[in-house]
Amino acid sequence: MTELPESKVDVLIIGAGPAGLMLALWLSRLGVKTRIVDKRTAKVYSGQADGFQVRSLEILDSFGVAERVWKEANRMLEVSFWNPDENGTIQRSAKSVNTIPGLSRFTESVLHQGRIEQFFIDGIRASYPSNETPLKVERMVIPTSLEIDEAAAEDPDPEAHPVTVTLRHLTEEEATPTQMLSNLSDGIFRSNLAEDDVAGILDRSKGREARDEVVRAKYVVGCDGAHSWTRKALGKEFEMKGESTDAIWGVMDIVPITDFPDIRFRTMIQNTAGALMIIPRENRMVRLYIQLKEVSAGGGRVDRSQITPEIIFKSAQRIFSPYKLEYHYCDWWTAYQIGQRTGDHFSKLNRVFLAGDAVHTHSPKAGQGMNISMQDSYNLGWKIGLACKNILPRDVLSTYELERKKIAKDLIAFDGKFSKLFTGAPPKDIQSETGVSDDVFQKAFHTSRMFTTGVGVNYQPTVLVAKEADADPETEDDLPNTPTKSAAKSTQSLATNCKLGQRFPSYKVIRQSDARLWELHHKLPSNGRFRLVVFGGDISQPAQRDTVNALGAWLSSYLPKLPTIALGPASDPHSGLIKFKTDADPSIVDVVLVHSAPRDEIDLLRDVHEAYHPFDSKLGWDYDKVFSDGKTFYEEPERAYEKYGIDSGKGAVIGLRPDGYVGLVTPVGYDGAEQIQKWFDGIFQRS
Amino acid sequence: MTELPESKVDVLIIGAGPAGLMLALWLSRLGVKTRIVDKRTAKVYSGQADGFQVRSLEILDSFGVAERVWKEANRMLEVSFWNPDENGTIQRSAKSVNTIPGLSRFTESVLHQGRIEQFFIDGIRASYPSNETPLKVERMVIPTSLEIDEAAAEDPDPEAHPVTVTLRHLTEEEATPTQMLSNLSDGIFRSNLAEDDVAGILDRSKGREARDEVVRAKYVVGCDGAHSWTRKALGKEFEMKGESTDAIWGVMDIVPITDFPDIRFRTMIQNTAGALMIIPRENRMVRLYIQLKEVSAGGGRVDRSQITPEIIFKSAQRIFSPYKLEYHYCDWWTAYQIGQRTGDHFSKLNRVFLAGDAVHTHSPKAGQGMNISMQDSYNLGWKIGLACKNILPRDVLSTYELERKKIAKDLIAFDGKFSKLFTGAPPKDIQSETGVSDDVFQKAFHTSRMFTTGVGVNYQPTVLVAKEADADPETEDDLPNTPTKSAAKSTQSLATNCKLGQRFPSYKVIRQSDARLWELHHKLPSNGRFRLVVFGGDISQPAQRDTVNALGAWLSSYLPKLPTIALGPASDPHSGLIKFKTDADPSIVDVVLVHSAPRDEIDLLRDVHEAYHPFDSKLGWDYDKVFSDGKTFYEEPERAYEKYGIDSGKGAVIGLRPDGYVGLVTPVGYDGAEQIQKWFDGIFQRS
Repeated sequence: MTELPESKVDVLIIGAGPAGLMLALWLSRLGVKTRIVDKRTAKVYSGQADGFQVRSLEILDSFGVAERVWKEANRMLEVSFWNPDENGTIQRSAKSVNTIPGLSRFTESVLHQGRIEQFFIDGIRASYPSNETPLKVERMVIPTSLEIDEAAAEDPDPEAHPVTVTLRHLTEEEATPTQMLSNLSDGIFRSNLAEDDVAGILDRSKGREARDEVVRAKYVVGCDGAHSWTRKALGKEFEMKGESTDAIWGVMDIVPITDFPDIRFRTMIQNTAGALMIIPRENRMVRLYIQLKEVSAGGGRVDRSQITPEIIFKSAQRIFSPYKLEYHYCDWWTAYQIGQRTGDHFSKLNRVFLAGDAVHTHSPKAGQGMNISMQDSYNLGWKIGLACKNILPRDVLSTYELERKKIAKDLIAFDGKFSKLFTGAPPKDIQSETGVSDDVFQKAFHTSRMFTTGVGVNYQPTVLVAKEADADPETEDDLPNTPTKSAAKSTQSLATNCKLGQRFPSYKVIRQSDARLWELHHKLPSNGRFRLVVFGGDISQPAQRDTVNALGAWLSSYLPKLPTIALGPASDPHSGLIKFKTDADPSIVDVVLVHSAPRDEIDLLRDVHEAYHPFDSKLGWDYDKVFSDGKTFYEEPERAYEKYGIDSGKGAVIGLRPDGYVGLVTPVGYDGAEQIQKWFDGIFQRS
Repeated sequence: MTELPESKVDVLIIGAGPAGLMLALWLSRLGVKTRIVDKRTAKVYSGQADGFQVRSLEILDSFGVAERVWKEANRMLEVSFWNPDENGTIQRSAKSVNTIPGLSRFTESVLHQGRIEQFFIDGIRASYPSNETPLKVERMVIPTSLEIDEAAAEDPDPEAHPVTVTLRHLTEEEATPTQMLSNLSDGIFRSNLAEDDVAGILDRSKGREARDEVVRAKYVVGCDGAHSWTRKALGKEFEMKGESTDAIWGVMDIVPITDFPDIRFRTMIQNTAGALMIIPRENRMVRLYIQLKEVSAGGGRVDRSQITPEIIFKSAQRIFSPYKLEYHYCDWWTAYQIGQRTGDHFSKLNRVFLAGDAVHTHSPKAGQGMNISMQDSYNLGWKIGLACKNILPRDVLSTYELERKKIAKDLIAFDGKFSKLFTGAPPKDIQSETGVSDDVFQKAFHTSRMFTTGVGVNYQPTVLVAKEADADPETEDDLPNTPTKSAAKSTQSLATNCKLGQRFPSYKVIRQSDARLWELHHKLPSNGRFRLVVFGGDISQPAQRDTVNALGAWLSSYLPKLPTIALGPASDPHSGLIKFKTDADPSIVDVVLVHSAPRDEIDLLRDVHEAYHPFDSKLGWDYDKVFSDGKTFYEEPERAYEKYGIDSGKGAVIGLRPDGYVGLVTPVGYDGAEQIQKWFDGIFQRS
């Protein structure tokens, strides 16, 4: 047997769905040498996941790739509840807001997975200078073996490549799911009713080992879905556990022809014939989630041949009755069995990781799957990337499992509860004790929203988040790997709406140099940098100005001791083209000043320390780092200080991780400087 | 001599600058067979025109191509005025708003011409189905002869091709301006200080007639700039007339290194050393317009060798003094002589047209050139396009000269005044009688803004605009070709902010079917359709609802008598992807209903006539045609009725041309129907 070709890579990503592509995007923005392989022949063209929660849109926007989603997606603004009246005829029992107003500049939106996969690919391409070949998804490639050199795994040398993976390059025929050959719009082959097809693929490609290659990687991430090959390769202890119910639901994407009045609203119908959810989407389509009462898993796997679009649609028609429902166009359909499973381990030796469906699965109706999956790898990407670049010590990687396992558990718990509520028989009338009352259902729906938007995520105290333990005892218990706590002490009360461990919200601020209003998030893009957002307070007051400038002076001497980071072409995606470059790499910590003084009383160069408008010998002063909270000729005042919960006189300093989560809240003065130093030293200076 | 190859085309566009590209975009959206040729080797890469007025952004947005401009461009929000104080040191004398707040959702913005040319090209490509070859700019092609068959020119047959043009295909060497070979960032070769280079190009390509071809066109449009070959080919009567001053100005695009505080604001500096304007732009650049006191045309043409970037920059430094000004990066520079010229004729026989700089030139400082040029061909495009498709009678084409010559004259008058004011020696103090006082200058600046934004444009009464003559006598006099006036009578008082002859403004309205807030402009894209915006008033009141629905019933019987229009893939650019199609072409008149009733009291299918939510056998009801003015869970009320100046009880119907200009204002009731019929019959049924 001939030797297989061998190569090295920093990170190998297995699976190019939303979780894998998000990771690839992060790593391409950070300039990390990456490969991403997928067993399928092409990206998804219709159906699959479609709901974007607001936090996911914020994250995509932090890479500059949310605009097209936001433009093309259908936005779900209101939700409608329909229940049988005393005669058993469905009627609207309530209509209310779908996303909590003021939570984010985005609202829940719907667009099919193929489009977002395209935007990821475009976003990856934009990460590279025009003279470099961008990272591309290598399709029709499947891993056949994975080994970790356990001794080398703990090697602190950032150039260690302890994971070895064999990859097989498939032909189109080998890679095509057999079922897909017969019906393109049938999504059952990806549903949880389908068997794993990896064995079949390997079987079809037997005897073709000549097309194998060996890859040595620093890190490998399995984003390969519910049937994850990577998870299986890691061994029995990585098996997911959970429960399945017998309930089977059908899903159809159709252009509806109907007289149902709320067809363009997100709508929950509970009828005696079953339950149904309408998700209005782009292209005049709606997605219908339809309870299939006549099909049951009966304690095991359901007979897939029982499930046809005709059966699913007939159920939908019964639930819609007395309203009419027909269609001419059906874009996609599938079915799934309700169940929730998750794994105990998200990583092995902090060298091989699992993300997305590979480590937690659940039912799709709450629109969480794609979102939590993307957020998994958004959490992981910068940690792996900065570890590869030797900017972060490797043990920061253990915060991935710590932070995301809690989310997965919350998700599983939420989904179990939500699914049961939704499938409960509807009450004949609102007082009924036998079913789930509309009232109970609505209440559950609304209380779940902070979780389902993704904005409620709250990470635990670690070296990355300088806070005391939350009251929730669950947070603390099962976390043997917790990295060292931060030595810094935060003062949460200085910024009551910038919650430690939660995502920093975005409000609008005015750029001092040109009066333009900006979403503050647009000045904090995902490019690997930590941030200090210095809310400087009223710097028209000499004492406060002196305090802010003293901090500036201290930062000017402290920041050069920290690592620097090379920024690529897409590192500032909201400021348009970057044509002119300077030579020096900036600090890993970016400083942004937001003051509350009257804008016209402040002269940027005269009043504010150079730390807040650094000078460059080729580009002059930086005019893009100082903002004010006040009024313009064009817009109503935003009152950002008030919304951030910060005193407009004395301000506060907010420390942000590269993913935009709050890690430190501290005063502007000397005590703040001390905490800032403790926080960053704790992150960068360990070893 | 061998026969030259011959071909036919509907429209031949000569010149692929902003005017030519705007026309090509319109025609590609309308599905008209078009060619566009340009003598240059490539699009502009730096420098040239850069200012986007708000109306231009609205127009680009109507094709779905404004988003990238709006993202990448620098927005100019405030304007600053600097003058010498009593000691002769410049100081800020005023800072104020740059664009009138509330005028538009856009503000004046700056981005270099090469980017917008790229966006046009992308917008053209999006106009074609994926299986068709999109219109492409044919570069290095120059016309060598143009003839109009005058007898055929008046042929009402829409298939007549009375214009014959010979085109020559150049080599790269022949097409490259000789001066450009020496210095890429030098823009003088395109400035009005440069000689016409067409003769030189023809000279270099002599003896290459074998590469000529003959094109027979229905229409030819010369968008070929100040030295327009097309204009010259039309004969002496098309010569531009006007005056030049001796004043020479330099222009530089640099990344400034300066301690001048207002460097990121649009700023006018009047110093004893001369006058200067700062235009802050994208990519950390500023454009400086710099008066060159030491260079003069001296009654004739200036010696171009006198003008170097060093001389221009030294002037700038003197004017900036005592502030320091340096640079490391210079992207582009040029110089020009102030002067204003325009032609008496914008078309020959309504078969050959001139647009943009080919028919009016002036100085660039007010940021008007590219804007007025694009707006010329925006006015012309739909008229030619719908004439080619036999939807509009040919005589509508004479409204082009009528409408745009007035704008050109206004522009010339404005520019002469503005340039003189700006070049006037600054007063030693504000009381001085010898110079232009800062106060006078500021006042002139502010009063000119309605004109410079492009929003003030007011077209005359014609068959397209059913109004009485304006008070301005100039409007009426010199217009022998005026097409028939409309037989319809408007009632302007019903919609006081929807001015007849002016662009319909955009405010936000809520979609009835899903509660999403939309800019009303986004529901009125440039796709060739006329519009009836039915402000239906309070349709929760039965009498008003009956009136609105009676109009709907009448429209359902009237509209099918009008022509239909085929819509291409980009005909609804703000609603994302259009995946599912129906077979029937829609009416040339699109109907949109905006009511003022409480949204929750209206059931779209039950309460509103089908004319406002047409049914399609494949796609179901249209949920995208009815909007309300009210509140949502997410936004403050827009009060659109109030902003449009329309009574929220009884409403009004607004008739719009395909370019978004108001052509009719009439009541919702039967009298309105009569006027609607008169207006459309007058437009479509003549011959």
